[in-house]
Amino acid sequence: MKLSLPDVQYDLRPGIVEFRAGHPDLALLPATGVLQAAQVVLEREASQALSYGAEQGPGCLIKQLCAWLERVEGKRHPSTQVMITGGASQALDMICMLLTDPGDIALVQSPTYHLALRVMRDHHLELLPVPSDDEGLRVDALEETLTLLQRRGRQPRLLYLVSTFNNPSGITLTLERRSALAELAQHYNLIVMEDDVYYQLWYDTLPPPSIYSLTPSGSAIRLGSFSKILAPGLRLGWMLATPKIVQRCMKSGVLDSGGGLGHFTAHVVAAFIELGLLDQQIKTLRATYRERRNVLVGALKDHLPKECHWLTPQGGFFVWLRLAQGMDSTAFLQTAEDAGVSYIPGARFFADGGGDNYCRLNFTMLSLDEIEQGAYRLGKVLYNYL
Amino acid sequence: MKLSLPDVQYDLRPGIVEFRAGHPDLALLPATGVLQAAQVVLEREASQALSYGAEQGPGCLIKQLCAWLERVEGKRHPSTQVMITGGASQALDMICMLLTDPGDIALVQSPTYHLALRVMRDHHLELLPVPSDDEGLRVDALEETLTLLQRRGRQPRLLYLVSTFNNPSGITLTLERRSALAELAQHYNLIVMEDDVYYQLWYDTLPPPSIYSLTPSGSAIRLGSFSKILAPGLRLGWMLATPKIVQRCMKSGVLDSGGGLGHFTAHVVAAFIELGLLDQQIKTLRATYRERRNVLVGALKDHLPKECHWLTPQGGFFVWLRLAQGMDSTAFLQTAEDAGVSYIPGARFFADGGGDNYCRLNFTMLSLDEIEQGAYRLGKVLYNYL
Repeated sequence: MKLSLPDVQYDLRPGIVEFRAGHPDLALLPATGVLQAAQVVLEREASQALSYGAEQGPGCLIKQLCAWLERVEGKRHPSTQVMITGGASQALDMICMLLTDPGDIALVQSPTYHLALRVMRDHHLELLPVPSDDEGLRVDALEETLTLLQRRGRQPRLLYLVSTFNNPSGITLTLERRSALAELAQHYNLIVMEDDVYYQLWYDTLPPPSIYSLTPSGSAIRLGSFSKILAPGLRLGWMLATPKIVQRCMKSGVLDSGGGLGHFTAHVVAAFIELGLLDQQIKTLRATYRERRNVLVGALKDHLPKECHWLTPQGGFFVWLRLAQGMDSTAFLQTAEDAGVSYIPGARFFADGGGDNYCRLNFTMLSLDEIEQGAYRLGKVLYNYL
Repeated sequence: MKLSLPDVQYDLRPGIVEFRAGHPDLALLPATGVLQAAQVVLEREASQALSYGAEQGPGCLIKQLCAWLERVEGKRHPSTQVMITGGASQALDMICMLLTDPGDIALVQSPTYHLALRVMRDHHLELLPVPSDDEGLRVDALEETLTLLQRRGRQPRLLYLVSTFNNPSGITLTLERRSALAELAQHYNLIVMEDDVYYQLWYDTLPPPSIYSLTPSGSAIRLGSFSKILAPGLRLGWMLATPKIVQRCMKSGVLDSGGGLGHFTAHVVAAFIELGLLDQQIKTLRATYRERRNVLVGALKDHLPKECHWLTPQGGFFVWLRLAQGMDSTAFLQTAEDAGVSYIPGARFFADGGGDNYCRLNFTMLSLDEIEQGAYRLGKVLYNYL
């Protein structure tokens, strides 16, 4: 049990370069903009913003969000297919609660966001991994799995993946595979849970269209979040899905009783977008994180043994470092931390084991000097293990 | 499907006195105080407040909440037994998800908060009603039910009740029954979900100690909320439970992934309490709502047929009106609305039917004139039905 009460989730240890984080840069959180937006809300529409909110999310945010998505992604979403959520994790939790039963099979990309696996396990889903390669989820392997399951008379309920700038691998599913996946999902009546919280954090070129936008039949649900592009403490995101799924979520007991999730902060975010602050914020994040990514991949090249391998991520938060075959990143984590550098061992991102020779390195929460220093320290540790 | 996008959950129809609401008075929502608190937070602790929050809730709010509870209820709660929630409905939803399995029996007070029943049904719990009388839940009937179930080899997982100023009945469980219930719960290893969101809205005298405080063994969970005493749009409440239950909730996938619920608004509420604004707000609410209650019970006496019966609620939001035996409040709702007055039919508050001759009347959202007018209109409708 913790002795003192923490305020926040991160735990930055002095003297350690924390590549293990998955958080935005604290210094870039837009305090002034949020205050400006809160002022607008509380001076202009306080009684709406402080009341029980509409179950779908407040109309003001849905309107701002749809206009923003159209502007930045070039796609128009009917408001009946948009819902405000308490962040991507809450949305995943809600979907599992409402659309799955204990014992259902959930296919999960491997590697994938480790805490999403925990959410699904809380709902007693049986997790079956589907492998990825450098182009993202292997749709051929998915098809094999689906065929095999069908032969056994089992129908998986959903497939969970981080399609763009994957957590942990940084890889983006190619357009070709997105299309193939959309078709397959439709054929097998599989719900694709597309966790797409990094989409707007591209550092080179705009990613391919979402799987959701390629599945007009409605077998995909796409999750977005304000956590990475605005502020995680607001606990706010959105979901794109069929009107039927949106309606099912709106009619859940918890929303019927308590009203829309994060209603007040939803108003604040609507005002933040309305004031033009979101575009500005994302521009700042892209420039800052792009540089940090560049410094990290440069420093890895300078300091790591030649047996190590990584791809330069085109966006998102992470570099996925592969060590020499046989190395176990869990085993030498303590040594690394003693040497002043930390990471998340790759094994955590696999539902069924594997990934021992990988490390997830975050570059968004660290200064350029820290990144350089961290890579240097990691290199020293790795040379000792060779 | 809705044609326009609503912003808020209430739907006030011009010309109708809406006794059916369950919301605080919009005009009393403390916009200025929330802005003041938001300013403090964003100028003093923005990077903490906008980050991923601690799973239990931010330390700053837990500290303020514990001090406040000690001041207003005279009881000190160790911080290991306190958790910040996204409101009472979210807490109930989370407890159902983590501590029950589909098919489990949940005993529910009858009548009880109708939307809590919806939350439990989403988790596929089997709801078994336990009757109440003018002293609250009938603990003797509960004991009979427990004995009967035990004989059949069934162990109910939890009991849900609104113990203080019950929604819809306004009745407060007596101290004697609270003690008996606490003992019984311990004996039968039953989790008592004490939904206690109206506790601080007493208009005459402080209610008896919570069931939670009478069960040192830890078989009770008590839910509190800032929705009724501050602002529902903040989606924030708290839970008092054993350290084991608090830890289980903190370790859920959704909190591990997204961090504490409503983290930013939790900081705002902590600052709101710190500034002394919560005590002030509750004082205002008590004075205003007490007067409205008095006017409502007076107007009912003036305008309703003598066959009608109600108890004066000592706190909370509602008067629970019993009509003559055989009258069906669902059947003449339309007539009442045509006559410019609305209410919620009593049948909605019973898990298994019954309550047809009851109406729930809310008095917190209406002006004194509206209350008077509404009672007059309702009386006219009722006289026509006699």
